[in-house]
Amino acid sequence: MAFDSPILTDCGDILARFTDVRTTSTRLAAPLTPEDWMLQSMQEASPVKWNLAHTSWFFETFLLQVHDADYEVFHADFCYLFNSYYNQIGKMHPRPDRGLLSRPTSDEVMRYRAHVDEAMTRFIEASSDQELSEIAPLIALGLAHEEQHQELLLTDLKHALSLNPLLPGVYDLPSIKTGNSAPPLSWEQMEGGLCEIGWNGKGFAFDNEGPRHKVYLHPFELANRPVTAGEYIEFIEAGGYENPNFWLSDAWELIKQDEWCAPLYWRKLDGVWREYTLHGERPVNLEAPVCHVSSYEAAAYASWVGTRLPTEFEWEAAASLFPLEGKFLENGAPDAPQPAADGERLTQLFGDVWEWTASPYVAYPGFNPPGGAIGEYNGKFMSGQMVLRGGSCATPKGHMRLSYRNFFPPDARWQFSGFRLARDCG
Amino acid sequence: MAFDSPILTDCGDILARFTDVRTTSTRLAAPLTPEDWMLQSMQEASPVKWNLAHTSWFFETFLLQVHDADYEVFHADFCYLFNSYYNQIGKMHPRPDRGLLSRPTSDEVMRYRAHVDEAMTRFIEASSDQELSEIAPLIALGLAHEEQHQELLLTDLKHALSLNPLLPGVYDLPSIKTGNSAPPLSWEQMEGGLCEIGWNGKGFAFDNEGPRHKVYLHPFELANRPVTAGEYIEFIEAGGYENPNFWLSDAWELIKQDEWCAPLYWRKLDGVWREYTLHGERPVNLEAPVCHVSSYEAAAYASWVGTRLPTEFEWEAAASLFPLEGKFLENGAPDAPQPAADGERLTQLFGDVWEWTASPYVAYPGFNPPGGAIGEYNGKFMSGQMVLRGGSCATPKGHMRLSYRNFFPPDARWQFSGFRLARDCG
Amino acid sequence: MAFDSPILTDCGDILARFTDVRTTSTRLAAPLTPEDWMLQSMQEASPVKWNLAHTSWFFETFLLQVHDADYEVFHADFCYLFNSYYNQIGKMHPRPDRGLLSRPTSDEVMRYRAHVDEAMTRFIEASSDQELSEIAPLIALGLAHEEQHQELLLTDLKHALSLNPLLPGVYDLPSIKTGNSAPPLSWEQMEGGLCEIGWNGKGFAFDNEGPRHKVYLHPFELANRPVTAGEYIEFIEAGGYENPNFWLSDAWELIKQDEWCAPLYWRKLDGVWREYTLHGERPVNLEAPVCHVSSYEAAAYASWVGTRLPTEFEWEAAASLFPLEGKFLENGAPDAPQPAADGERLTQLFGDVWEWTASPYVAYPGFNPPGGAIGEYNGKFMSGQMVLRGGSCATPKGHMRLSYRNFFPPDARWQFSGFRLARDCG
Amino acid sequence: MAFDSPILTDCGDILARFTDVRTTSTRLAAPLTPEDWMLQSMQEASPVKWNLAHTSWFFETFLLQVHDADYEVFHADFCYLFNSYYNQIGKMHPRPDRGLLSRPTSDEVMRYRAHVDEAMTRFIEASSDQELSEIAPLIALGLAHEEQHQELLLTDLKHALSLNPLLPGVYDLPSIKTGNSAPPLSWEQMEGGLCEIGWNGKGFAFDNEGPRHKVYLHPFELANRPVTAGEYIEFIEAGGYENPNFWLSDAWELIKQDEWCAPLYWRKLDGVWREYTLHGERPVNLEAPVCHVSSYEAAAYASWVGTRLPTEFEWEAAASLFPLEGKFLENGAPDAPQPAADGERLTQLFGDVWEWTASPYVAYPGFNPPGGAIGEYNGKFMSGQMVLRGGSCATPKGHMRLSYRNFFPPDARWQFSGFRLARDCG
Repeated sequence: MAFDSPILTDCGDILARFTDVRTTSTRLAAPLTPEDWMLQSMQEASPVKWNLAHTSWFFETFLLQVHDADYEVFHADFCYLFNSYYNQIGKMHPRPDRGLLSRPTSDEVMRYRAHVDEAMTRFIEASSDQELSEIAPLIALGLAHEEQHQELLLTDLKHALSLNPLLPGVYDLPSIKTGNSAPPLSWEQMEGGLCEIGWNGKGFAFDNEGPRHKVYLHPFELANRPVTAGEYIEFIEAGGYENPNFWLSDAWELIKQDEWCAPLYWRKLDGVWREYTLHGERPVNLEAPVCHVSSYEAAAYASWVGTRLPTEFEWEAAASLFPLEGKFLENGAPDAPQPAADGERLTQLFGDVWEWTASPYVAYPGFNPPGGAIGEYNGKFMSGQMVLRGGSCATPKGHMRLSYRNFFPPDARWQFSGFRLARDCG
Repeated sequence: MAFDSPILTDCGDILARFTDVRTTSTRLAAPLTPEDWMLQSMQEASPVKWNLAHTSWFFETFLLQVHDADYEVFHADFCYLFNSYYNQIGKMHPRPDRGLLSRPTSDEVMRYRAHVDEAMTRFIEASSDQELSEIAPLIALGLAHEEQHQELLLTDLKHALSLNPLLPGVYDLPSIKTGNSAPPLSWEQMEGGLCEIGWNGKGFAFDNEGPRHKVYLHPFELANRPVTAGEYIEFIEAGGYENPNFWLSDAWELIKQDEWCAPLYWRKLDGVWREYTLHGERPVNLEAPVCHVSSYEAAAYASWVGTRLPTEFEWEAAASLFPLEGKFLENGAPDAPQPAADGERLTQLFGDVWEWTASPYVAYPGFNPPGGAIGEYNGKFMSGQMVLRGGSCATPKGHMRLSYRNFFPPDARWQFSGFRLARDCG
Repeated sequence: MAFDSPILTDCGDILARFTDVRTTSTRLAAPLTPEDWMLQSMQEASPVKWNLAHTSWFFETFLLQVHDADYEVFHADFCYLFNSYYNQIGKMHPRPDRGLLSRPTSDEVMRYRAHVDEAMTRFIEASSDQELSEIAPLIALGLAHEEQHQELLLTDLKHALSLNPLLPGVYDLPSIKTGNSAPPLSWEQMEGGLCEIGWNGKGFAFDNEGPRHKVYLHPFELANRPVTAGEYIEFIEAGGYENPNFWLSDAWELIKQDEWCAPLYWRKLDGVWREYTLHGERPVNLEAPVCHVSSYEAAAYASWVGTRLPTEFEWEAAASLFPLEGKFLENGAPDAPQPAADGERLTQLFGDVWEWTASPYVAYPGFNPPGGAIGEYNGKFMSGQMVLRGGSCATPKGHMRLSYRNFFPPDARWQFSGFRLARDCG
Repeated sequence: MAFDSPILTDCGDILARFTDVRTTSTRLAAPLTPEDWMLQSMQEASPVKWNLAHTSWFFETFLLQVHDADYEVFHADFCYLFNSYYNQIGKMHPRPDRGLLSRPTSDEVMRYRAHVDEAMTRFIEASSDQELSEIAPLIALGLAHEEQHQELLLTDLKHALSLNPLLPGVYDLPSIKTGNSAPPLSWEQMEGGLCEIGWNGKGFAFDNEGPRHKVYLHPFELANRPVTAGEYIEFIEAGGYENPNFWLSDAWELIKQDEWCAPLYWRKLDGVWREYTLHGERPVNLEAPVCHVSSYEAAAYASWVGTRLPTEFEWEAAASLFPLEGKFLENGAPDAPQPAADGERLTQLFGDVWEWTASPYVAYPGFNPPGGAIGEYNGKFMSGQMVLRGGSCATPKGHMRLSYRNFFPPDARWQFSGFRLARDCG
């Protein structure tokens, strides 16, 4: 978290954004049943209810308990129950058991949210300008944190619901113009050279996006759009999952052991590839970017067509030439990436699907996380993960930045993750 | 299931019992939240909601779909979702994933129960005497099955709730006269010789309780009551869990690996042993039978005091001399075994806690399960399990019989399981 | 171990048997390389070298160190390295790591054996008659123990070598008259009633074979010979491994998970079933008893033909009518069970293959193991195992008794285990 | 493997180096017993015997079978048995079972080596200059491959022997001047800027060391020597292993689960830290570089002292200023890193211990592995591993290069791995 220049310091602006973000979370949870709120299908995922409580715990723990002398905690045990991974805050409930918390109930968690919202509102309104400028970075962090959990709420829920043989659709899908074709694959040439990478200092950013620093890039080419589901099916049907030559060694072990043969959530019924989505099961949109693939599958596909994935530096250098536009959560179709539009040289850099890069998630030169428990936010995860860039159809637009670094283990598939090809210049 | 002579063939009697048993299930579930209904904390346990649906599926599958030509299934997928283990019925939902079924919701499952109840009532009322006498055994089986699941609903729920740090109490505990002391341990001498063991043919019984057959017993002595919690604490505090000499080899491996040091649900706080119960956490009742021990712990305690556990034949031969009386589910304290009363030579044979025996669960001579899927009810589990006898405070009284054989793996602790000592005669 | 009346108390007799048994062990190990002596392919199995050392450790620990004041231990660390499971003797080397003991080398272990043999010989020769009669039971136990390990040496070695793609044959197979046909299956009727079971007090026996006691048996019939490999192939080819109806629930889970489809060591090449043996791979002898099946497979086959396995009491009652004759280790073909001979009413009760019974391995009434570490020999394993009877082609003949109870978990297949059918009388 | 300019093309030079490298392998194996040659203590490690055979298989498979029309394979099954991971060569023996290959025996493997050596010698001598220049790169690769396995032979053997409670010392330790003190820690300032990284094209190199490319480095400082064992003990004794703040999240999970509290092979006896080595157990040399730590521990130590690890680019840029000198395998003490010498600005860059860097092991820009099975040598492992630089006391000197990239998972500790600190400038 970079705290130098948070975007909002005006009381009204802060309150408006606070209300907006907090309301979005509950709006996402509203169509679901109390039973849906309980689901935890793997250790890496958390229940909706836990997500809703944990994001409130964040404000309670890092803001209200520290800065608001009058604050009364809602429930003494929640500090333990809803701490995610902050060792400096104290012991925490075991991650795999989050789905066993039938109590507190959904209603209690909603009361907890209301309690925190009220306290935060009162606290913000009562703060002087001076005080506001001091806590604004923490509020910005809390809201960015909550936006992260909005996307996780959706991906975690999707994973759990996908295991229900009833394949429930829980969100309406707005009527979207279908039948679009993705433009043909083309290559945008990039010159490389010394580039500035990382957060430019304007507005809020996570600590892992800085410091801004120079990187030398060799000339490269980037595909105009992500690989489509239709293109990926060609890989499947050419036996891609049966040929070790395309796969990293770890990947090959994994796909044999877990019998992977297609993206997560896909199955072939009567000759047609279908995918489970939060809008129900439906035929795969062949023209849309392939989604729910691991970085292993992304790299294998790239190898199959004789290309590679871009590094995160290549991606950022290219994306810096384009405006931050795309289909995000606000689009109202949180589980429906769309085909690329025609016309631009590089499209869909932002929104629709996260793009796996070839870059392991490590610190930028000079990286120095803040002290205290907040310092655990990002830095301690810089091991064994890969960077994804650009956001997805489930990312709130206000959450996205050019310098944003998302990260997941290379075998993770339950995020809205696709990929774009790169290649070296001749 | 022994079908020769089910206890009820009168339409009114059948309906009354049907209503009674079915209502008991929903009455047990009523104080719980929809979130509580979802909990599954281990593969061996099932959610409340699943228990409620599965018992309805049993009537639907084995009665209505087979015998009622007019019956319309409630939901086509429920046959898959709520089949427990009947391979002959078809494929089934994976057992460990039962806790991931947020859909159907609690409300839908209650509608499912109502649908089956209505259909069963209509069907019973419309049956001729001749037809009734044919289906009465199956109804008796379905109701015995549901009664089994009433106890499992409680034990499975208890296991899951015990993992919630809030240690929720979900049932009121009726005010019970406390302060009772268990009578001192004494020994009842039994002559042995050739005994008749197994179901006597009167009323309903499971298939595994027969055929009735002769067993030769050597003279033995049986303790007047189960071992109490207070006595068991002496074993703990004498280092019982640290000394391999008292333990079977498998048991010793297990207790070292899982770091067992007391019965399940116990912890020592400020020098006092406390136990989690469905009525909330409370101090262990030292005079009540120890509960939630495995057969390994029962055998280790017996070894420590130089005795042994009785065989199921010894238990049945002794218990046949006493009336079937004790504290059962109807007592209203489904998680509170009580101290033995004074006076009787052998007390608490029935109710309060199940008693582990020294007998592996195997077929009686001449055992022959019925054909078809119903034959999978008991026989296929005759491997690796031990017999428990007598029922517990969570067993419906109407479910208990002298010949009743409950069975669980030797390391199981989440049932209401205690034990009684035996020894050879001089 | 029953100590009342060991068979040998004469010094010369004892020495002769001591030498004979000890020599047999080294004779079995002689054709093998130092590398073969190292092999440990699973936790349950031990290397040849460890077997040879552990049997010497047994004499050193229970005899020489206790009774021979002059004895000097060969190596201080061997007490730790070669203790198998005697907690009362002290800590021990972890079982799964036995295959990692390259040191002591084979030569050192042979020197250890020689050291113990010399000390034992000197000690026996120096003992008075009075002293001899006191230690004779312990010597008998040590020799019985070593004979057990002779068979284990072969079964453990076979398991490890079978995993070597070279499928090495390590023992010559004496030319045995082949082409024998097994006699047709027939049934011997047994009356049952009150029978005496267990060790009759003559000669040496393990503690678990007593006390001798009465058991009531219902009339039953026993097959004239074990099920043959050819008969078992019919079960395989009728889809026995694909039909859950024949299998215990635990067994069905296991065979699906581990993809069992035939006895251990079998594979079908060019339409012919072949089996790996210590004499090399060869076609399955269709007329010989099927071997290397688990009790699960035995029970499934029995279920498929509408029969069952005998209890160990039925087996012993029937076998008591026949002399203890059969093909044992002395036959010189330790991995080649032979077809049954014609003529007898019940054949192959002893030797060729161990016969799984339907009896879990539990204590006989009044069982009371001896005090001290020796008491750990048998009793602590009375959990989760099944009894086998009669010995095999790899059992030393002098080791076998009518009352002998071998025991292994129901899924064990690496012993020379087959089975014989039983059924209830009409 | 970069094939452009292998160092040797003269027949005599090639033969001399071939003989030298091959002889070194057998010299390392000579003091060991056939039993030692069998040891495999974990999946990642291989037995000495397997190492000796596999390196011969490499020449047989990639050279003799491809280029020598007259070559006769030694044994048809060895292609399967001794293939390590080359999917394009065909199926292979399962890695975890390498320790179960008692056959072929040690003698047979030595005959296999002799067979390959003879064939190679004959083949090299019979080749024309033109032919030699074509196969020289493959020979260079095969010899580099064998040198890698010489170090692995030692590290794998050490791991296995360390699990033997006898803690055998298997190599003599030449008398080395002891009592040296490491110089105090000091920092060498590096300017950074655009640097050339990677293989310079002279002599042999692995494919992963190129292409040579530009990297932009920010100014940094590098420690004059690796962290010593004595310094590391301060970290241990300051509670480093109990404080999550210093650890990556993955690392913290691991050290809690596996109860790490010191480097591998260390234990504290009577207040003194001791370490197992191939020369036997001995007190830790406090002045020598700490060895057998994971990259997690290296990073935690660096965090504890407020520094970090260098990237592989920083390391190479700095090391390029110094000659390739240090203590390697030829030093005759393959398991005894020595204290740094005084005087140089940066010491011990090469030899003694491998140095963990902060760099994940990924492809250099433009990396393109060769076609065919040889292309599997390095590239497919570019996932989830970290780069180590500089070689160790067990690395053959002729094997080391400035551009050499060793790689292991971040939790690996059984290599001779230490680390050097870096920090950002001012």
